[in-house]
Amino acid sequence: MKIRPLADRVVIKNVEAEETTKSGIILTGAAKEKPQVCEVIAVGPGGMVDGHDVTMTVKPGDKVLIAKYAGTEVKVDGEECVIVRQSDILAVCE
Amino acid sequence: MKIRPLADRVVIKNVEAEETTKSGIILTGAAKEKPQVCEVIAVGPGGMVDGHDVTMTVKPGDKVLIAKYAGTEVKVDGEECVIVRQSDILAVCE
Amino acid sequence: MKIRPLADRVVIKNVEAEETTKSGIILTGAAKEKPQVCEVIAVGPGGMVDGHDVTMTVKPGDKVLIAKYAGTEVKVDGEECVIVRQSDILAVCE
Amino acid sequence: MKIRPLADRVVIKNVEAEETTKSGIILTGAAKEKPQVCEVIAVGPGGMVDGHDVTMTVKPGDKVLIAKYAGTEVKVDGEECVIVRQSDILAVCE
Amino acid sequence: MKIRPLADRVVIKNVEAEETTKSGIILTGAAKEKPQVCEVIAVGPGGMVDGHDVTMTVKPGDKVLIAKYAGTEVKVDGEECVIVRQSDILAVCE
Amino acid sequence: MKIRPLADRVVIKNVEAEETTKSGIILTGAAKEKPQVCEVIAVGPGGMVDGHDVTMTVKPGDKVLIAKYAGTEVKVDGEECVIVRQSDILAVCE
Amino acid sequence: MKIRPLADRVVIKNVEAEETTKSGIILTGAAKEKPQVCEVIAVGPGGMVDGHDVTMTVKPGDKVLIAKYAGTEVKVDGEECVIVRQSDILAVCE
Repeated sequence: MKIRPLADRVVIKNVEAEETTKSGIILTGAAKEKPQVCEVIAVGPGGMVDGHDVTMTVKPGDKVLIAKYAGTEVKVDGEECVIVRQSDILAVCE
Repeated sequence: MKIRPLADRVVIKNVEAEETTKSGIILTGAAKEKPQVCEVIAVGPGGMVDGHDVTMTVKPGDKVLIAKYAGTEVKVDGEECVIVRQSDILAVCE
Repeated sequence: MKIRPLADRVVIKNVEAEETTKSGIILTGAAKEKPQVCEVIAVGPGGMVDGHDVTMTVKPGDKVLIAKYAGTEVKVDGEECVIVRQSDILAVCE
Repeated sequence: MKIRPLADRVVIKNVEAEETTKSGIILTGAAKEKPQVCEVIAVGPGGMVDGHDVTMTVKPGDKVLIAKYAGTEVKVDGEECVIVRQSDILAVCE
Repeated sequence: MKIRPLADRVVIKNVEAEETTKSGIILTGAAKEKPQVCEVIAVGPGGMVDGHDVTMTVKPGDKVLIAKYAGTEVKVDGEECVIVRQSDILAVCE
Repeated sequence: MKIRPLADRVVIKNVEAEETTKSGIILTGAAKEKPQVCEVIAVGPGGMVDGHDVTMTVKPGDKVLIAKYAGTEVKVDGEECVIVRQSDILAVCE
Repeated sequence: MKIRPLADRVVIKNVEAEETTKSGIILTGAAKEKPQVCEVIAVGPGGMVDGHDVTMTVKPGDKVLIAKYAGTEVKVDGEECVIVRQSDILAVCE
């Protein structure tokens, strides 16, 4: 089953705690309950959003940092995902 | 009886719990009271909404994910429906 | 006596409960106190509203669904009416 | 003494209760404390307001319906008036 | 000492109570603590304000009505003044 | 050490109480805790701010009036300064 | 490991207290808990943000002043960083 996000939305998946540690990015304080390092699963087409033309700059496979509490949680094929707007993505980890 | 949504509005219907399970999308935690996977029943014409030109990208029959609490509940021909704006639709499930 | 709404405003009148049942649209739960199915009585000219050009897409006689709590109640020739903006109208029932 | 409203503002005067009844428009419920049917006394020139070009569509002598609590009360030559924006005027009674 | 307001700002001075009575404009109710009839002392140049081009339509010497609580109080050469935006001025008294 | 404000920001310094009295501008009431008459220390380049082109109209050395509570306090070379947006400046004292 | 901020975002790192003192900028009062003088680590590409074209005017290595409470804290390679929007940067210290 495939999930196709609309407009400027991005489907992301939490990266496991082990991988997070390996990559060298650990979140401070209260951030422990909900990791902010995520992997991009699917990316919307962008286009006109609230009257502004949005170009998508992330792609599936990217490791991204998102603001905590951003987005809506869903479960796709038994895996917990979050759908955020691209503007909720703070940075890409390379 | 037919319901014709205005502007960027979309009429959606909750997909039964069984079908939700089959499709592999199950909503987490508090989402159980109000399923987020819905089927599109009717789609507005789009056009100028708050001064922005909106193109409709969903069509009747699409299975969509919506944010909980989005939209207004109505009952059409005895069936519970919800009217949302297209921007409340997070993703299409294929 | 005639009431002529300004800009994008629409004067609507509650449809009687009997007619509502007949048409097959019944509102759920808390909606019972204030029916959402209304008949359009008068339609403003549209035009520039908050800097956006608004085209009126409803006409007198249309049966429409409005969000509860939308609009301002007035009594015209002894009959209770509500004045809403066209953007408060969710859908037309055909 | 004359009062000249600026921009999209309109000076209105409450219509006496008797006249209100005669015209067939009576306001419901809590509206009794402050009648909503008013007569237009003076109209601003319109023009650029918040970056939007506003055309004035009401004229002195018009009977108008305004939302309760809209505007600022002033007393001109001993008579209580209210200054509202034209966008606070819901409809014209003819 | 001179005060030169920026952008769409206007420096105004309360008109004495006697003069207010003479001109025939008396403010109702709670308005007594802070008269709304003021004289314009200085006017900003207008121009681009929040991305909109503002043309100043009041001039020094004008008697104006302002909404209560609008603006910032300052004392210039021992005299209490208020600095408001032109959009806070409701009307000019002639 | 030099501080260079970004965009439409302006660095200002409180003018001493004595000077304030001399210039003839004294602030009323609660304004005593934080004088509003300030001297401009440094001015940002202006340019695009929130999508609007901002032209800077104040210059270092100007005595300006600012709204209380506007801006962020910093200490530069041991001297207390405040960084405000130019739109927080009400007027220039000449 | 590298962190690449998106859009108008900037990754900054707190400058040590000693260095802060040396540079002559000390923050007043409650600012002590979270220093506002930061060093820029990485800068996003700018471009269209909320429909406005943003040009980045800071560069890695710049010492900047940010408003307290701005941004999101992350830890990159064991070092605490903050991701802010460029518009949260008040000034550059030279």
